[in-house]
Amino acid sequence: ALPLPKTTRALTYDAHGSPTRALTLARDLPLPPLGARGALVRWLAAPVNPADLNVVEGVYPLRPASFPAVGGNEGVGVVVRLAADAGDVVVEVGDVVVPAAPGPGGVGGTWREWAVVDASRLRVAPSDLPLAETAQMSVNPPTAFRMLHDFVPMPRLRDDDDDDANLHAVALNAPTSAVGRAAIQLCAMYGVPSVALLRPRAAETEYDADARELKRLGASVVIRDDGAAHRDRETRELLASLPPIKLALNGVGGASSRSLASLLAPRGVVVTYGGMGRKPVEIPVGKSIFEDIEHRGFWLTRWLRDEEAARRR
Amino acid sequence: ALPLPKTTRALTYDAHGSPTRALTLARDLPLPPLGARGALVRWLAAPVNPADLNVVEGVYPLRPASFPAVGGNEGVGVVVRLAADAGDVVVEVGDVVVPAAPGPGGVGGTWREWAVVDASRLRVAPSDLPLAETAQMSVNPPTAFRMLHDFVPMPRLRDDDDDDANLHAVALNAPTSAVGRAAIQLCAMYGVPSVALLRPRAAETEYDADARELKRLGASVVIRDDGAAHRDRETRELLASLPPIKLALNGVGGASSRSLASLLAPRGVVVTYGGMGRKPVEIPVGKSIFEDIEHRGFWLTRWLRDEEAARRR
Repeated sequence: ALPLPKTTRALTYDAHGSPTRALTLARDLPLPPLGARGALVRWLAAPVNPADLNVVEGVYPLRPASFPAVGGNEGVGVVVRLAADAGDVVVEVGDVVVPAAPGPGGVGGTWREWAVVDASRLRVAPSDLPLAETAQMSVNPPTAFRMLHDFVPMPRLRDDDDDDANLHAVALNAPTSAVGRAAIQLCAMYGVPSVALLRPRAAETEYDADARELKRLGASVVIRDDGAAHRDRETRELLASLPPIKLALNGVGGASSRSLASLLAPRGVVVTYGGMGRKPVEIPVGKSIFEDIEHRGFWLTRWLRDEEAARRR
Repeated sequence: ALPLPKTTRALTYDAHGSPTRALTLARDLPLPPLGARGALVRWLAAPVNPADLNVVEGVYPLRPASFPAVGGNEGVGVVVRLAADAGDVVVEVGDVVVPAAPGPGGVGGTWREWAVVDASRLRVAPSDLPLAETAQMSVNPPTAFRMLHDFVPMPRLRDDDDDDANLHAVALNAPTSAVGRAAIQLCAMYGVPSVALLRPRAAETEYDADARELKRLGASVVIRDDGAAHRDRETRELLASLPPIKLALNGVGGASSRSLASLLAPRGVVVTYGGMGRKPVEIPVGKSIFEDIEHRGFWLTRWLRDEEAARRR
């Protein structure tokens, strides 16, 4: 066997700041020994999420344990070595792996080639999925999954013995985001109609291409997210043909969240998981008072923390 | 006994519209006979709530059963006659009474001198309370009461065997409104600190007088509701001395609701019962995602409807 590396390249930062200035490419970041529970991982791909940039900026509620810190929260790698007694782990040498969780329950920064991590914090990933998709499976798809399940009861899968009486529809903005795309595909899988609010693009051809792509993924209706369009006649008829919209997934805020809330049936829930519009969530007062619209937030890190605490009790 | 009236004066409207134009003073509105369940009531006082004006305007989700309609939802009166077999009622001739509920479960319009109403929809009121206060006890005080109890567990009354570990504080805007004043007094009664966000007034002396009055009612802290003031040092220290703010009562919306939400401790709840600012409720995205702030609506009419439905099951 070839000798194992003692150092790695990594994107590190010594203090919070704008990512383009704060991050540097370290070429010889030392790798610690495996220790009792360690796994040596060759990272193959890691995404850059908006939240990763917020962590570097220091505006995210999670901060690195120490500096220099390595950026990145997700990734896909291969286990190259494993401590002889790694404890209660599910991975083996040669496995394609992803972090069990983002943030504090995870493996630390993933923007690096090599790392020694706590082996219990790795999970085996499907080896037949393309690397780019595998690298992105720890945060956004589970965020979509949990939001679809934790606030409004989801019908059983289409091929089960369905009770259509409880069928509802789901609305979402930021539909081309990773969470949005996952939510649309999951809805299609469950047989739940989805209504995608798509922002106008610079060019109409671009908007049309994105709308077609969303329909290909399974969106039932695509509505222009310009603050008012969902009130035109064609859209109203399309919406009237759907079961009541009981759940709205909001990754934007501002006027877009107001539009989402206005689509909801009485006692529906808006769940906010992001604020790409950098505006507060807006809920129409009348919907709130007279139709009992509820607004909640979702953060996968908190969900994982709560699960972990519940498991320990 | 003097002969009973066959007609009454009343403020009526034949169609929805601006109250100053739509309302007329009818002098001879006929009174029906008592019938099987009727009570003849001499109304003594009735308030004008913003919601009453919205009903006349036709922008409220409740509408009169028919025209001409009589305005008003609340009031205080005296029972002058009662049908011989009025059924399961708790009132007697001579009782000071209020409607059991506003809206559809109530007695219909109260802006009138005399009415024949369903006796089961009246409740005996304390006869030692001033008329103006009695006339206003059916909507705003119970709204404050329910909002203080239904979303975050309220401690037992101060003179009970208290467990201070669960103590929390309550924040509210529109503190000089009828709901606000009731909430502040109830909080004081429960030993729960209250934080009142008070809008700037035209004159500073007016603001100071209102702030003193709120403290007299029991408010622990009065903060200027100008969108940012709660971040000054003195206010931060005052707030730091309180138990965590777990509940916020919002009657305004817009920037004021954003300020309320920003005061909340993690997992706190904003409850909206009014929108006097005519702006959507605003919840900061970060509070929502990272601190699990929840937003709910409260409408007494819906609460009463749900209670009624639950009783029938």
